[in-house]
Amino acid sequence: MSNEVGLNECCDNPAKAGRKTKKDPIRVKVRDIEIGGRDIIVIAGPCAVESMEQLTETAVSVRNYNAKILRGGAFKPRSSPYSFQGLGEEGLVMLREISNITGMPVVTEVMDTRQIEMVCKYADMLQIGSRNMQNYPLLKEAGMAYKPVLLKRGMMATIEEFLLAAEYILSQGNEQVVLCERGIRTFETATRNTLDLSAVPMLKHLSHLPVIVDPSHGTGLRWMVPAMAKAAIAAGADGLIMEVHYRPEEALSDGKQSLDLNEFRQLMKDLTKIATAVDRSI
Amino acid sequence: MSNEVGLNECCDNPAKAGRKTKKDPIRVKVRDIEIGGRDIIVIAGPCAVESMEQLTETAVSVRNYNAKILRGGAFKPRSSPYSFQGLGEEGLVMLREISNITGMPVVTEVMDTRQIEMVCKYADMLQIGSRNMQNYPLLKEAGMAYKPVLLKRGMMATIEEFLLAAEYILSQGNEQVVLCERGIRTFETATRNTLDLSAVPMLKHLSHLPVIVDPSHGTGLRWMVPAMAKAAIAAGADGLIMEVHYRPEEALSDGKQSLDLNEFRQLMKDLTKIATAVDRSI
Amino acid sequence: MSNEVGLNECCDNPAKAGRKTKKDPIRVKVRDIEIGGRDIIVIAGPCAVESMEQLTETAVSVRNYNAKILRGGAFKPRSSPYSFQGLGEEGLVMLREISNITGMPVVTEVMDTRQIEMVCKYADMLQIGSRNMQNYPLLKEAGMAYKPVLLKRGMMATIEEFLLAAEYILSQGNEQVVLCERGIRTFETATRNTLDLSAVPMLKHLSHLPVIVDPSHGTGLRWMVPAMAKAAIAAGADGLIMEVHYRPEEALSDGKQSLDLNEFRQLMKDLTKIATAVDRSI
Amino acid sequence: MSNEVGLNECCDNPAKAGRKTKKDPIRVKVRDIEIGGRDIIVIAGPCAVESMEQLTETAVSVRNYNAKILRGGAFKPRSSPYSFQGLGEEGLVMLREISNITGMPVVTEVMDTRQIEMVCKYADMLQIGSRNMQNYPLLKEAGMAYKPVLLKRGMMATIEEFLLAAEYILSQGNEQVVLCERGIRTFETATRNTLDLSAVPMLKHLSHLPVIVDPSHGTGLRWMVPAMAKAAIAAGADGLIMEVHYRPEEALSDGKQSLDLNEFRQLMKDLTKIATAVDRSI
Repeated sequence: MSNEVGLNECCDNPAKAGRKTKKDPIRVKVRDIEIGGRDIIVIAGPCAVESMEQLTETAVSVRNYNAKILRGGAFKPRSSPYSFQGLGEEGLVMLREISNITGMPVVTEVMDTRQIEMVCKYADMLQIGSRNMQNYPLLKEAGMAYKPVLLKRGMMATIEEFLLAAEYILSQGNEQVVLCERGIRTFETATRNTLDLSAVPMLKHLSHLPVIVDPSHGTGLRWMVPAMAKAAIAAGADGLIMEVHYRPEEALSDGKQSLDLNEFRQLMKDLTKIATAVDRSI
Repeated sequence: MSNEVGLNECCDNPAKAGRKTKKDPIRVKVRDIEIGGRDIIVIAGPCAVESMEQLTETAVSVRNYNAKILRGGAFKPRSSPYSFQGLGEEGLVMLREISNITGMPVVTEVMDTRQIEMVCKYADMLQIGSRNMQNYPLLKEAGMAYKPVLLKRGMMATIEEFLLAAEYILSQGNEQVVLCERGIRTFETATRNTLDLSAVPMLKHLSHLPVIVDPSHGTGLRWMVPAMAKAAIAAGADGLIMEVHYRPEEALSDGKQSLDLNEFRQLMKDLTKIATAVDRSI
Repeated sequence: MSNEVGLNECCDNPAKAGRKTKKDPIRVKVRDIEIGGRDIIVIAGPCAVESMEQLTETAVSVRNYNAKILRGGAFKPRSSPYSFQGLGEEGLVMLREISNITGMPVVTEVMDTRQIEMVCKYADMLQIGSRNMQNYPLLKEAGMAYKPVLLKRGMMATIEEFLLAAEYILSQGNEQVVLCERGIRTFETATRNTLDLSAVPMLKHLSHLPVIVDPSHGTGLRWMVPAMAKAAIAAGADGLIMEVHYRPEEALSDGKQSLDLNEFRQLMKDLTKIATAVDRSI
Repeated sequence: MSNEVGLNECCDNPAKAGRKTKKDPIRVKVRDIEIGGRDIIVIAGPCAVESMEQLTETAVSVRNYNAKILRGGAFKPRSSPYSFQGLGEEGLVMLREISNITGMPVVTEVMDTRQIEMVCKYADMLQIGSRNMQNYPLLKEAGMAYKPVLLKRGMMATIEEFLLAAEYILSQGNEQVVLCERGIRTFETATRNTLDLSAVPMLKHLSHLPVIVDPSHGTGLRWMVPAMAKAAIAAGADGLIMEVHYRPEEALSDGKQSLDLNEFRQLMKDLTKIATAVDRSI
């Protein structure tokens, strides 16, 4: 049995996400920021938008420490219906406002085909989360939107299925897709998920799309984020998406895996050295 | 570390899917068929609705061999965007027609919040598939529909997450939910998935909802379906959902795991003996 | 990609464990007990041999309730070096004595090549445990012993690796091997392991060796053992191995998954009905 | 449920492998080479010792490119009994000879308690492989040997079980143990195993023992080894063990994952930059 995925062999039609049809790596543009070039792009911000104060304090700081894109959830997919579900459109309004103030483009998650139109009014990039990686109607709608898409790998998805999910977007005409490794589910319980960094070289081998890594969800442990962020860049990732909160201990969700502002500042310094070591910049 | 799931401990609110709030097992009614009683209910039919001929021949036969509910997909979630995606509303029309002719209620998958209203016009029971087990907007909409729901376990969902997904439906007021174990993803590749039959006693231990098993997707191997169908009943399942096709070798999807009519007839005989051995009927 | 294991294709030499070289299922003889025939063989006893009283009370009872072979560990593989490691040769002496009194053959685990000769003096069947499924020197030594071998599947071994491990024994000339499914490691934590009952039909499809199931280790939950024992027989298993203790709450190891004598008696009654339903006896 | 392993909470006795009893990281000495200090130690060599020519050519080159310890298997654990099993003592003799010529210490795998005495005559460090991580008699014997031990994580072992396996060695009095992450088994089949680099910071967090990484077995793909080797150093590993062969296409085992001499030379250059970026040397 071969150890290598043959993406083009598993589809009847030539796969747009595969390397064979499009040899050169592409760059995905989020307003004026390019993902997939020599620059490593760091996306940072809180798990969920909670208030203007929280968002402003966090956004201004991460921008000053060189993050290029702001993240923040307005619609939160939570395992329990009784957990905090996000601020909805009110959160999107805040994201837009902060984006205008700071000049940072914003990426936010969309969970429902009926939300896409609204989210597109406020966001610069659409995120499709892990749990929705095989929500095909959602992928198709994202494929028809005029926004770049950040597609996160399902926690149970093989590399092949991940690329086929991207294919659903590409096949609708939207080629601006960034792939994001965020940890897979395994038997190990010491970390929240098992961050599969081998996905980085594998995806870049099989596809022309940029690949970034989410060490916050990938580990679930704040103290472990820096080590895995550095490893991701060394493995060849084009960027990182990380949860940063101005007061992690007060976060309404994912506080345990959010860096505080000082930790983020220090990490960005360390990442610069790794980027240089792999002939890239940050 | 405890080996047992404490559903009620993992939520702030009392979980409606858990045993503590509702001691007695409930029965879910699909028209005149009750799931969760002494009778073991067999749901059978093709993976996808392909034509009136295919549907009629299959439906009439499985009814004669004692299947109680007809299954058939009109909207098919496929890993590749280039695979057959189902007949859509045309397929739903056929399902309704055959249902009226044979008197069997029909269950069919819904994948998109925007489809629910239409699917409710034709179907007697809504199926939410594995890939959408954590599609929360879809679960909520299903919770507001006046139809019983067949909720399939995600292929990488824990028992706890499975019950919390059911909770999304129940929390909207719809208590007519049937849980379906259909195989989880493991390292083993000899079978398509690993059918986790221990989920049957575990779910019945933790919840008052009926539990059925899908040995077709659970194994992916036609010849293995009978053994696992028998095992499911012996383990305490309230029913089975199986793929049956009048000509499996010509099926547009999942032919490899579909029983033909003769195999189904023989299996139903064998299942009757197992049902008797566990003091149930079929 | 094929879903089916091709055992003979993965080896250069024809595999002795595979069906192609030896078409008919074989029977493994443990003194006068045959595993692999019409009779379903139940192996029962405590996890570890603790004392003559414990062993006698348990053995006499399980024999009266129709267990055919006695199990009990003298050398216990424990994750921590500080846990109870078994009584060693003293435990083997007790096993032999009880075997002589009750007339039941005994099976016990061997962990070290240097122990085999000693264990063979006392035991009627050698057990090679999960953690040692790929301990090749041990497998080879067992292949040279004149005793039947009970080989347990590694908790993360594929079906193919399991059969290749059996091949190590068979290739040394010992063809008396019984395969035992005992649960695999998956992401699910509600049960101790995930009992993979599809391994039963798969192993019987690929090999001529008898297959039994261990629902005690497979679930880790005493209350779940009966459901899974019944399911195993319905799936086609040739036997069961179960932990039974006269006082589970006082057991030095695995008390949580041990049946007490009453539970065992009741289960044996229920199993008789399932055995009849699949045209076998117990 | 906590995401963090509490090693000391899972044992009755204080665990020697855990941080609480021994605060400072230790260094393991293999002759004059120290693992666990500022220097990152690279162990390189062929999967199996095949001939003096193969071993000499490979060893001299990897030493010139700055590898510090030579690896090479004389006893090979193979899934099939019909695969090449290694040269045995003849291979050990060659390893000793090359070690004397090149001045590099050698590490080689031991699989059987009966082999330890012999292997200790030739090798400078004992390797206990993945499949034997829970072979407790072997661990205990290694704990009584006067040689440092390289312990590889089982492909199915949690971090906790890995540390408890180390504990078996330490509890016998041998404290010279190096832990090695080498990939775990998951559902993903694109790579041979899933290299769990989060194990590096986690093990260093929980234990005082040095941690190295095996990207050859961890990926199974020669072209992917450099990316993951760099990532391992960035994540904080104290060293690497890699398969290098002077003619990978002719290797008797693991040729697909072995670097050739040029690839190794280039990789060592790249690793030097990463080491500098994390304030270490190579």
